[in-house]
Amino acid sequence: DPSLKVLTLNSNPILAEQIAEKIGVPISKSSVARFSDGEVQINIEESIRGCDTFVIQSTSAPANEHIMELLIMIDALKRASAKTINVVLPYYGYARQDRKARAREPITAKLVANLLETAGATRVITLDLHATQIQGFFDIPVDQLQAVPLLSDYFKEKQLDDIVIVSPDHGGVVRARKMADRLKAPIAIIDKRRPKPNVSEVMNIVGNIEGKTAIIIDDIIDTAGTITLAANALVESGAKEVYACCTHPVLSGPAIERIANSKIKELVVTNSIPLSEDKLIDKIRPLSVAPLLAKAIIHVHEERSVSVLFD
Amino acid sequence: DPSLKVLTLNSNPILAEQIAEKIGVPISKSSVARFSDGEVQINIEESIRGCDTFVIQSTSAPANEHIMELLIMIDALKRASAKTINVVLPYYGYARQDRKARAREPITAKLVANLLETAGATRVITLDLHATQIQGFFDIPVDQLQAVPLLSDYFKEKQLDDIVIVSPDHGGVVRARKMADRLKAPIAIIDKRRPKPNVSEVMNIVGNIEGKTAIIIDDIIDTAGTITLAANALVESGAKEVYACCTHPVLSGPAIERIANSKIKELVVTNSIPLSEDKLIDKIRPLSVAPLLAKAIIHVHEERSVSVLFD
Ligand SMILES: Nc1ncnc2c1ncn2[C@@H]1O[C@H](COP(=O)(O)O)[C@@H](O)[C@H]1O
Ligand SMILES: Nc1ncnc2c1ncn2[C@@H]1O[C@H](COP(=O)(O)O)[C@@H](O)[C@H]1O
Repeated sequence: DPSLKVLTLNSNPILAEQIAEKIGVPISKSSVARFSDGEVQINIEESIRGCDTFVIQSTSAPANEHIMELLIMIDALKRASAKTINVVLPYYGYARQDRKARAREPITAKLVANLLETAGATRVITLDLHATQIQGFFDIPVDQLQAVPLLSDYFKEKQLDDIVIVSPDHGGVVRARKMADRLKAPIAIIDKRRPKPNVSEVMNIVGNIEGKTAIIIDDIIDTAGTITLAANALVESGAKEVYACCTHPVLSGPAIERIANSKIKELVVTNSIPLSEDKLIDKIRPLSVAPLLAKAIIHVHEERSVSVLFD
Repeated sequence: DPSLKVLTLNSNPILAEQIAEKIGVPISKSSVARFSDGEVQINIEESIRGCDTFVIQSTSAPANEHIMELLIMIDALKRASAKTINVVLPYYGYARQDRKARAREPITAKLVANLLETAGATRVITLDLHATQIQGFFDIPVDQLQAVPLLSDYFKEKQLDDIVIVSPDHGGVVRARKMADRLKAPIAIIDKRRPKPNVSEVMNIVGNIEGKTAIIIDDIIDTAGTITLAANALVESGAKEVYACCTHPVLSGPAIERIANSKIKELVVTNSIPLSEDKLIDKIRPLSVAPLLAKAIIHVHEERSVSVLFD
């Protein structure tokens, strides 16, 4: 379909290729370079007039570079008379700055929503927002997809015996519940406190994990403090083995070292954020969200509901 | 005056200190750090409720980082009930992307204007915009200051004989004219063509430069191709010696090497963009715009016109 255009920027070129292939269109010709002084230089090299355009870009690290690339691309598409500008954000950066936790803090997740709209985005397609309230930060339609089915299916195929799905905190119980339903397993919850950002502390385990195969599920794994302490606590409390999974592998700072040294047998993630060379350790298994995003793009283009994808 | 607050981010901390000192207020307590994953973390550590706030930040390289820091700070100030949010942009990045030179190009200078307003800026104070039309990209007041008086005064004190002010291109003639008036000197113009961005080519010289001390004036010096070729052409055509000056020392890529190897005797710049260690060569002389910006800030705070500063 020549009126459906898929464009890529610098965050997820491989995922974009996979999506375009699934849909059966070529990636539209465009380039994102830098001028000598580091300013972003974007050129769209084919007509996109009157088209439904889909820009694939996670606002993962370097978040500020990726956000500005995205805003500038949206501006260029708007001025080139695109019919719709659909921003496909597999990972929505700054999602953790979603409220004023302290006095005089910014709400950067809301700021980013405003910036995308100001630039000219007409719709957002995203995956597992850290805080679902972020949907309400936008005045344009937001389709939020979920990685739970993909992650669950992977574990289903492993045919593990006697499993328990573990939420690493109270905020993740709904997600753990969804996975547990798909795998017909019970859940457990880890009751922890975090003294400050990027530092975690594991507390006691609520639920029966004795002798079971535990699968911890989270949305974001950043410095991996929470998840590795949780895994070790589960093993110490009698779990047979521990798997972990998440949608967004941010994996900053000490994350890789912590995961490598932890009791986690395997960490299953998605490619919402691509893993750089140094993060491709044996224990980490990335699954592609390309089929899911491709389906969502086709639904949007054909003006069909995206919610049917939550089977 | 406790209702005037000066805040700084990461682009120009020294200039901000100088400005605050000139005004006679301390820099307001705030921090701009990075979370482990590189996201910007801003904390304003004192009340700014009901105050006129002035945020000093050039959107110089790394432009995207500096823009996002600024937008997030504006968001925080807005949510902390600042009375006014005045953005002091000694250097306005992306100013060269101010029109669609080719099909399907973004107009990033306009995008940045929209982003600043969306975040919550109520006024912009800036210096020598690359394209004066950028003022019109904003729907909030923009005060544009000029470095010509500062640069001219520096050369006046040198008491050079028989000078000629040279514009490196036709677009810079008005600026050269202003400097020439202040120094009571004639002007000359270099007639050049640029085959592509960051590549320059010098053509013939219009005006009499024979035996004279030439002072080339430009707004931005980026890769320094234009200015160094101009200087060499002037010497070859009989100029006695060549000085150069500009408002914004972007100085990217080969700039420093080119300047060091050129016929330029001295390059006078402002601190709208601070010079990193590797750029502090003997030939380059930075002048501070702190007195000018401090005056502008006081005028704005006292609701007096800024245009009187153009003496
Ligand atoms: N990029 C980040 N890395 C670590 N912590 C963050 C980040 N962005 C925001 N935060 C903090 O994380 C907390 C919110 O996290 P959560 O409770 O998991 O939603 C807030 O205190 C934020 O200040
Ligand atoms: N950061 C940059 N570095 C070099 N060239 C740029 C930059 N931003 C925009 N341009 C190009 O510079 C040209 C405009 O420069 P000017 O004619 O000096 O206003 C346009 O062709 C732009 O594509």
